[in-house]
Amino acid sequence: MKAEILSTGDEIVSGGVNDTNSTWLAATLLTMGVATERCVAVGDDLVGIGRAIVEAASRVDLLLVTGGLGPTSDDLTSEAAAMAGGVESVVNPEALGSMERFFAKRGWDMAPVNQKQARLPKGAEVIENGVGTAPGFYLILSGCHCFFMPGVPSEMKVMARENVFPRIQKLVGLSGPLPSRSITVFGLPEAEVGVRLNEFNRLFPGVRLGFRVDFPLIEVKLSWGHSKGKGAETALAKAGQFVASTLGRRVVSTHGLAMEQEVGRLLLETGATVAVAESCTGGLVASMLTDVAGSSDYFLFSGVTYSNDAKVRVIGVKASTLVSFGAVSEETAREMAQGVRNLTGATYGVSTSGIAGPGGGNDDKPVGTVCIGVAGPGFSWAKRYVFPFDDRGMNKKMFAATALEMLRRRLTPEEGIL
Amino acid sequence: MKAEILSTGDEIVSGGVNDTNSTWLAATLLTMGVATERCVAVGDDLVGIGRAIVEAASRVDLLLVTGGLGPTSDDLTSEAAAMAGGVESVVNPEALGSMERFFAKRGWDMAPVNQKQARLPKGAEVIENGVGTAPGFYLILSGCHCFFMPGVPSEMKVMARENVFPRIQKLVGLSGPLPSRSITVFGLPEAEVGVRLNEFNRLFPGVRLGFRVDFPLIEVKLSWGHSKGKGAETALAKAGQFVASTLGRRVVSTHGLAMEQEVGRLLLETGATVAVAESCTGGLVASMLTDVAGSSDYFLFSGVTYSNDAKVRVIGVKASTLVSFGAVSEETAREMAQGVRNLTGATYGVSTSGIAGPGGGNDDKPVGTVCIGVAGPGFSWAKRYVFPFDDRGMNKKMFAATALEMLRRRLTPEEGIL
Repeated sequence: MKAEILSTGDEIVSGGVNDTNSTWLAATLLTMGVATERCVAVGDDLVGIGRAIVEAASRVDLLLVTGGLGPTSDDLTSEAAAMAGGVESVVNPEALGSMERFFAKRGWDMAPVNQKQARLPKGAEVIENGVGTAPGFYLILSGCHCFFMPGVPSEMKVMARENVFPRIQKLVGLSGPLPSRSITVFGLPEAEVGVRLNEFNRLFPGVRLGFRVDFPLIEVKLSWGHSKGKGAETALAKAGQFVASTLGRRVVSTHGLAMEQEVGRLLLETGATVAVAESCTGGLVASMLTDVAGSSDYFLFSGVTYSNDAKVRVIGVKASTLVSFGAVSEETAREMAQGVRNLTGATYGVSTSGIAGPGGGNDDKPVGTVCIGVAGPGFSWAKRYVFPFDDRGMNKKMFAATALEMLRRRLTPEEGIL
Repeated sequence: MKAEILSTGDEIVSGGVNDTNSTWLAATLLTMGVATERCVAVGDDLVGIGRAIVEAASRVDLLLVTGGLGPTSDDLTSEAAAMAGGVESVVNPEALGSMERFFAKRGWDMAPVNQKQARLPKGAEVIENGVGTAPGFYLILSGCHCFFMPGVPSEMKVMARENVFPRIQKLVGLSGPLPSRSITVFGLPEAEVGVRLNEFNRLFPGVRLGFRVDFPLIEVKLSWGHSKGKGAETALAKAGQFVASTLGRRVVSTHGLAMEQEVGRLLLETGATVAVAESCTGGLVASMLTDVAGSSDYFLFSGVTYSNDAKVRVIGVKASTLVSFGAVSEETAREMAQGVRNLTGATYGVSTSGIAGPGGGNDDKPVGTVCIGVAGPGFSWAKRYVFPFDDRGMNKKMFAATALEMLRRRLTPEEGIL
């Protein structure tokens, strides 16, 4: 079954709001084995919406439409659907009843303007809205199953979960997600990942290979390309092993975990804790670590020491080290990692000191230079890297991911550290 | 001039990532007086992309395409564009030269696979990519001006700003963007901002009012709706004053600055410095502050004290306060703000302690509870807030923005503090 998603609303095509409805619907359809071929957004325009419905219905078997079911004059989806179906728009007694129940339940009077919302294409089947005034509806156009839902994300999601997805599951006769795998990779550009996996399509013809860049990480996505799942799990497992062994220690997680999730998992597994001393990353390492729910079990502290004074006073870096080698040096990074470990009693100390730009660089230490330190039981280590980015945001992300990567390698000792 | 935007990538139609490129492009086109009629997203499918290009080119005058210009086998946009134009795909010497310069500048070897990126539709004009390997290109198809750009948002934005928008401005006969203003608002839901400004369209018929949500902030965008700019600046200034006076202290910046930029500006203006003690925000306050270039002039330190031990040992919160009132309390937040101010000698200390979720809440302190502290010359202050979000990421953002907002209000004393 092939699907399309149509979002309506001036706020979307004017760039006022991200169309998160489509993303959510597409991701949920995929868990039911339905691939979305196209997502379309059009403004509050009768002809524009009508055309988009007609076109989609001629291309695919399933169309999900959101938005434009409200009571105001710019809510035009119902009329557009009638136009697309070549039928009249009529007051639907069931829709009117559903709305009257909604208002009565809350003790509200129904405004005349709301009656507009009960006008649906002739022959449409009403879909109950449990949390808002706008009834949804269902139509078959050119053999395409069309579901119309409100645009407010919270209303749409309730209607989709309760009254739309169960019907789609029946239509497709599938009960589970399409088998897929996701492998997280760090330390290679997307192009290089592609080169190293260039044998993939020949070796695994039934598995679809895709990439998603979440800078600076790359997600390698393997999905089973056939509608019937026979042999899918075995093929995906073999394909996953091929990717993992080909990319070696560049693989962060064979379960699609983000860097901070994998580091958290490893820390939990070994009962270890971590503390961070950050300069150039400015709190980003800590913010990434604490994006993971439950991180308070292993994350103790981060000192964001932008000033040299804070490096000395809070973290315990020697002033002489700063004078002799500078803040951006392997020596300072090592003392920061050791210092924050001593300060907090954490199993591991991690540090960053560098130049994120746009200012602050020189010939010796250009923008993109970072020194990463890691200290732990019986060791302290630091290394300098130079990344080629001019952009402050990109450098912060790359520095933070590199710091966590160095900790990850310590936590998976068979791989060693760069 | 009518426009469409086409985004390509399996990650979009599979719901793996929100298509923020289209939102950004549509909003920027609007500043040039160009309305987007449709946004379309299709997967990494040669025929699918080709069809979408042909259809768009037959409907509108301007098409912006993003994604699918990378070096890997699922990057198919260039080939699809050639197919749509009925021309061959050939190695473009200029594109190859642009890529060779990119690699040479960084001292890297260019992998053979990257040469694929220099294959463009015959007759296409190369658009330089200043920050990545993929050259963009420009074609006219059925009279429609088509610009092809990379899908990585940071690369796309640089290319669009430097090499695409200036050409579109020429096409539409503008010497620059249409006059516009942007006002940043915090502390009101989008719907409420709309209600408070419901007189706007009657009062300022020549000015277009738009909203962009960058959670938890809202950007109110005022743009001059006519192609000729006579009287635009005066009308926009009056409209901006109306918005500012109507929304009062909910306005963060009348110059469109983000919260952390406005706080940074105010600190610089007064020659003040800031230090932060963060618990539930986990480094996000520091990371936001240090996203601003030059923030080392006023940002001294943040202690991300997840553990109670770190709150006591590093920041100097009294153990008895933690025992009597708990970590999430106004008393603890006040001591954190004071403590980090004492520790660093900063003019202002700011603190957060709360429950971002999903776990850790109870009836007394539900998920979404945060205590914010601010300390400064002669005062220390703390207050508890409860936000209605279940989502950890949303709570972290809301807590961090609230902390910075409370500092901002201290820095603009005529407005007082909530």
